[in-house]
Amino acid sequence: MRNEERTIGVVGMGLMGGAIARALRGPCGITQDQMLACDVDAEALAAAEGEQLIAKGYAAEAAGEMLALCDLVFLCINPQSLIAFLDTWEHSFKAGALLTDIAGIKAPIAARAEKLRPDIDFIPGHPMAGAEGGGFAAAARCSFQGKNYILTPLARNKPENLDFLKDLIRRMGFGRITETSAADHDRKIAFTSQLCHVLAAALIDCEADTSITRFGGGSFEGFTRIAMLNAPMWAELFTTNREALLERVTQFEDSLAAFKTLIQESNTAALQQKLTAVRERREQLGHFSP
Amino acid sequence: MRNEERTIGVVGMGLMGGAIARALRGPCGITQDQMLACDVDAEALAAAEGEQLIAKGYAAEAAGEMLALCDLVFLCINPQSLIAFLDTWEHSFKAGALLTDIAGIKAPIAARAEKLRPDIDFIPGHPMAGAEGGGFAAAARCSFQGKNYILTPLARNKPENLDFLKDLIRRMGFGRITETSAADHDRKIAFTSQLCHVLAAALIDCEADTSITRFGGGSFEGFTRIAMLNAPMWAELFTTNREALLERVTQFEDSLAAFKTLIQESNTAALQQKLTAVRERREQLGHFSP
Repeated sequence: MRNEERTIGVVGMGLMGGAIARALRGPCGITQDQMLACDVDAEALAAAEGEQLIAKGYAAEAAGEMLALCDLVFLCINPQSLIAFLDTWEHSFKAGALLTDIAGIKAPIAARAEKLRPDIDFIPGHPMAGAEGGGFAAAARCSFQGKNYILTPLARNKPENLDFLKDLIRRMGFGRITETSAADHDRKIAFTSQLCHVLAAALIDCEADTSITRFGGGSFEGFTRIAMLNAPMWAELFTTNREALLERVTQFEDSLAAFKTLIQESNTAALQQKLTAVRERREQLGHFSP
Repeated sequence: MRNEERTIGVVGMGLMGGAIARALRGPCGITQDQMLACDVDAEALAAAEGEQLIAKGYAAEAAGEMLALCDLVFLCINPQSLIAFLDTWEHSFKAGALLTDIAGIKAPIAARAEKLRPDIDFIPGHPMAGAEGGGFAAAARCSFQGKNYILTPLARNKPENLDFLKDLIRRMGFGRITETSAADHDRKIAFTSQLCHVLAAALIDCEADTSITRFGGGSFEGFTRIAMLNAPMWAELFTTNREALLERVTQFEDSLAAFKTLIQESNTAALQQKLTAVRERREQLGHFSP
């Protein structure tokens, strides 16, 4: 099926659903009448219609009506809701539909996707993009340009669907697509994303005095910007990826304890050596974009 | 003495010395022939001359020659070097000279400043600005616009000198000047600056696999950008402000342990509540600029 003929449904018109709808309508050149969405939030749907992102919005209970029309569905809701959504609506998807999601945890999604109707092709994904706040209103501030996109394809996925999705992702503006296993994704994301959010939250939780902003020089602000997070989603991600995240928290605690010991010992020489190695490693990592 | 008549010396043409020289020559309208600098690094001095920031550069051993000419001196070297510099050159400063510094720790600097020749007026300061890397080459990337500047004036400082310095700081582009005690500065900076650098370094020290950049979505990159630090300076800051910093590290460890416990317990409801409170507090802090 050609791109121009596909009907695309977005389930969940929040931050990521909204940003994907914008990218599909913009750089991907999908027409408004190819775009549908459903959400529990009628206001978000009305806003998306108002911005001409979608032809029609469906209430949550009318999801089946929309799904029956869609050749491609972006599932943009929290992991647990996503699994519940599949349980409820599996029978409603159009025959042969291509599905993908954006959840920050992949193992439970992949496990559920494996068990879907054989004609449905679900390719689990994770666009590594975001914006402060959350919700449809924040979607306009969420840039995909040059960002990373992780796919954790299943053995059952059709190669032509994978190629089609990767092409669409590139046209949305993403700079690098990585294919890996769900388990590998979850281990690495526990470090690069979830641990950072835990650290930022723990840092903000340390200090109630708002006058400390007068003593900010950039590092604290930059460090804690991600603490302006979607609390229900992150609470769910932390507990869903519990084992991998706890391993990373413990690893970080050990690493911090090593620095603390050197500070306690006033070991300036060893600190300097360690900080030099850290600087070199961080410089090797560069700007993370391809 | 009017601004146009003052000769200004910059001791240390590194990141901050270079950025201050640029701001003095640019927005402050100081002429090149009013500007002098000294440094151990002849290349940095040559570069500053080449960019017409200074009229003349002095080698470290000729510092006395320069200081004898300067009405205002910006001391832009690491804290321990600064104290050693004052010990060596105290007798060489011009009578009635105004001194200020940029060190990230203020108690030991203030203590030394208290004991200076009575005619010398040293107002300790800390511009809350920086740039990745360090050194004179990074000075061009160091913006002062809207940033915080902390002053920890001494009882012996002359009010007219304090007013003059504050006016100059504003003209350099800084957005907010806070006057406080050296002890208060050191306690708060331990949190907003030093702790963040320790955390970023500890995070980088956790992981040697450079392929994790493929899994970066912004938070890890933003978190660890400050790990590209000036290792000797930060090692010195960490140990010089040891007590205040260790208190903050311990406080952070406790805060992190509380999150870890909730994750271990899979207590999604309590995590969500805590993350909501964190988000609200971070939003209250805003963008840190006045």
